[in-house]
Amino acid sequence: MSVTKHFSNRAARMQPAAIRAVLAQMTAETIPFAAGKPAQHLFPLDAIYQQTGAMLEKHGGDVLQYSGTAGFLPLREWLAAQTPPATADQVCLAAGSAQAIDLVGKVFIDEGDKVAVEAPTYTAALSALKVYGPEFIAVDGDADGMVLASLEAALVAGAKLIYVIPNFANPSGVCMTQERREGVIALAKRFEVPILEDDPYGELRFSGDPLPNLFEMWPEGVIYCSSFSKIVAPGMRVAWMIAAPELISKLTIAKQVTDLQVGTYQQMLLHYVVQSIDFAAHLEEVRGYYGRQCQVMLDAMGQHFPAGICYDRPAGGMFIFCRLPDGYNALEILHEAMRRDVAFVPGESFFADERGANTFRLSYSLASEAQINEGIAILGALFREVLSE
Amino acid sequence: MSVTKHFSNRAARMQPAAIRAVLAQMTAETIPFAAGKPAQHLFPLDAIYQQTGAMLEKHGGDVLQYSGTAGFLPLREWLAAQTPPATADQVCLAAGSAQAIDLVGKVFIDEGDKVAVEAPTYTAALSALKVYGPEFIAVDGDADGMVLASLEAALVAGAKLIYVIPNFANPSGVCMTQERREGVIALAKRFEVPILEDDPYGELRFSGDPLPNLFEMWPEGVIYCSSFSKIVAPGMRVAWMIAAPELISKLTIAKQVTDLQVGTYQQMLLHYVVQSIDFAAHLEEVRGYYGRQCQVMLDAMGQHFPAGICYDRPAGGMFIFCRLPDGYNALEILHEAMRRDVAFVPGESFFADERGANTFRLSYSLASEAQINEGIAILGALFREVLSE
Repeated sequence: MSVTKHFSNRAARMQPAAIRAVLAQMTAETIPFAAGKPAQHLFPLDAIYQQTGAMLEKHGGDVLQYSGTAGFLPLREWLAAQTPPATADQVCLAAGSAQAIDLVGKVFIDEGDKVAVEAPTYTAALSALKVYGPEFIAVDGDADGMVLASLEAALVAGAKLIYVIPNFANPSGVCMTQERREGVIALAKRFEVPILEDDPYGELRFSGDPLPNLFEMWPEGVIYCSSFSKIVAPGMRVAWMIAAPELISKLTIAKQVTDLQVGTYQQMLLHYVVQSIDFAAHLEEVRGYYGRQCQVMLDAMGQHFPAGICYDRPAGGMFIFCRLPDGYNALEILHEAMRRDVAFVPGESFFADERGANTFRLSYSLASEAQINEGIAILGALFREVLSE
Repeated sequence: MSVTKHFSNRAARMQPAAIRAVLAQMTAETIPFAAGKPAQHLFPLDAIYQQTGAMLEKHGGDVLQYSGTAGFLPLREWLAAQTPPATADQVCLAAGSAQAIDLVGKVFIDEGDKVAVEAPTYTAALSALKVYGPEFIAVDGDADGMVLASLEAALVAGAKLIYVIPNFANPSGVCMTQERREGVIALAKRFEVPILEDDPYGELRFSGDPLPNLFEMWPEGVIYCSSFSKIVAPGMRVAWMIAAPELISKLTIAKQVTDLQVGTYQQMLLHYVVQSIDFAAHLEEVRGYYGRQCQVMLDAMGQHFPAGICYDRPAGGMFIFCRLPDGYNALEILHEAMRRDVAFVPGESFFADERGANTFRLSYSLASEAQINEGIAILGALFREVLSE
C-alpha cells in the first residue's frame, strides 16, 4: 500500500520539465545551446562579497530575520521607479518570475478556466499554470508578436487571462511591435481581461529602441513581472510583481500564505549590489555581450544552416528560435545532436497545443565563440543530412 | 471595471495572517511576546561573512547560477544523515517550512478533502492549506499531543492527510509523548493516511530526552519537514522535505513547477556555514538561551499571573500557550495590552474550528530578561483586572 493514492487530481498535472531532462544528459563536452542560463562571467561577484560585508556591518542580524511579505522598501522604491507609473506599494517580491507566474495562476485560475498563451511560449509558465487546471488557448505568434485576430478569437472563446512575454520572448526571441502592443491592450480592455506581462529579458535589448511596457499602457489591468535572474544573477531567486493596488494586495496575500516572503537576506543583498555598482554600465556590458554572442551565432547559422531552417534575428534576449520544414521532428534530431555533443531544446514543450514538433530553440548565452562556431557547424551538417534524406 | 472579477474561487480563501496585523501595530516600545521570530544574537553572522568569501573563491559564479530542484547534494547528504533512515535522494529543499506545507497541500488536497489538524496548530499552515479548499477536522490536543480518540474520529470521518508538529508545537509548546507518537502512527497506518510532520523546533529541546521523529517510525507514510529558520536564521528561507521516493519525487516536481528551486546561493551558503562552525556547540547555545528565557518567563508568570490563567511548561521551542477561563476573549484583552505596550498573539487563529477565543500565545524568544519581567507583570495586572470584573 502507498499513501500516493491520496494525491490530489492536481498532482497528475505536475510533470517534470522536458528541458531539465535534456540538460541532465549533458556532459562537460556538450556544446550548450540548450540551457536558458545566463553567462556567469557577468555576475557581479566582487560587489556581492563587498556588499555582504557592508550590509552585515550596517544591519547586523536584521538581514537574517523575518520581514514583510512585499519586500524591502528601498528595493521596491527602486523597482517602481524603473517601471512608471508604479509606486513602491504596487510592488511585491517573488522567488523568481516562475513563482510570480505560479501566484498569478493561484489567484486567477479555477479548473477549466481559459487562459490565452502565445504559441510558442515559456515552458515553465505552462507548467506552473497547468497545475491549476486551465484550458490553454494557443494564440498564434509571428515575428511581430501575438497575432491580434488569434488573440481576439481566444477572448471571444472566453479566455480570462492573457500570458505574454512582450520583449525577446522565450523561446521565440520576438519583441512585440508597438502596433501589436496597442492592439493587445485594446483587446484586453474591451474584454476586461487581465494580462500577465512576463519581462525577464526587457533590459537585454541590443538593437533598436525600447518600447513601452504593457503595464505602462494599462496599469489597471496588467500584472507586470520581472526578475534579477538575467540582469544580475538567477541564483538568489529574486523577482518582482507590479500591479494595481487591488491586484497586488491579493497577490501579496497569495505570496504570504504560500511561503511568507522572499528571503530578507537575498533581497537586501541584491538591493545593495545594484546600488553599489554602476548599474547602467553593468547593463550595457550585459547587452553588449549577448549582442555579440547573438551575432556570432547568426553568422555561423548563415554559413552552415541549410535553407530549409527558418529563423528570425532577435533584437535582444538569449534565444534564436528555429523551424524545420513541416513533418520533421526536432526531438528525434536532438538525440543524434547529443551524440555529436551539441545540445538544444526541441520546441514542442513551448506550445500549449500540438504544434511545434518541427521547432527548436538555440541559446547563445553560455557557449564560447569557438563553441558557437563549432556547434553550429555540427548542427548545420546534421540538418543537411536530415533534410537530404 | 476591474479585472478582479476574474479572481479564482481559491483567491477568496487567501486572507492575511492575523499575527501580521498585530505585529504591524507594534512600536519600538512594545514588549515583544507576539512574534515567532528567533533571537537575532544567535545568528552566526561572522561565519556567514567568512563563508561567503570562501564559497565565492571556491565556486565562483556557480553559486549564483540555476541548479537542480532537489538542492545541493552535500547539503542533502548532511540533512539525510540527521534524519535516519533517509538518504540524500529522499530530500528536497523548500523556501521555508511554509512552502513545504504549501507544496504538500498542492500535491494532496482537492477541494472538499478532509485534513486532520491539531487544535491548536500553526496558523500559517492553516492559511497555506486552506487555499486548496480542504475541510479541516480539528483534532483535540492536550499536554501529551494529539488525543488519539479524536484523531481516530477524524480518520473515520475521512481525513486523507494529518498535519502535526510533534516537537514543541507552535503555539502549544507541547511535545508529543512516545505513546501518542506510536498511537498516531498506528492510526495513520491503519487508515493508510499520510502524515505531514512539521518539525522546525525539534532541535530546540532544553529539557528531557529526544523522542524519535514520526518519519523514523514510518518512513513510507510520513513527510518530514524542517527548516534552518530556528536553528540558524530564517532570513534566507531554506527548509527541507524528506519522504519516501514516490512521495518526494512528486513533491520535487511540485517544487519545480512552482518556483524551479531554492536559490543556489542561499542553500550553498547555509551548507558551508553549518559545516564551518561547531554546529553541535551552536545548537547547545541556542537551546541554552531559549531554556533560560523560558524559565524567566515561567518564573514571572508564577509570580504575576492570577490563578485563572492555565498553561503548560514547555520542554523546548519558543512558546508558552495560555488559556483564560471560558467566556473571556484574548483579542479584546490584547487591545488593552497593546495600549500598555505589551504584545501577544490571541489564539483564535490557531484553531481550525470555532475554539480558542480564550487562548493566547506568549513567545519568549525576543524579549530581554528585564522586558520579560516587566511585560509579564503588566499582563498579570491586566489579567487580574479583567478576571475581577
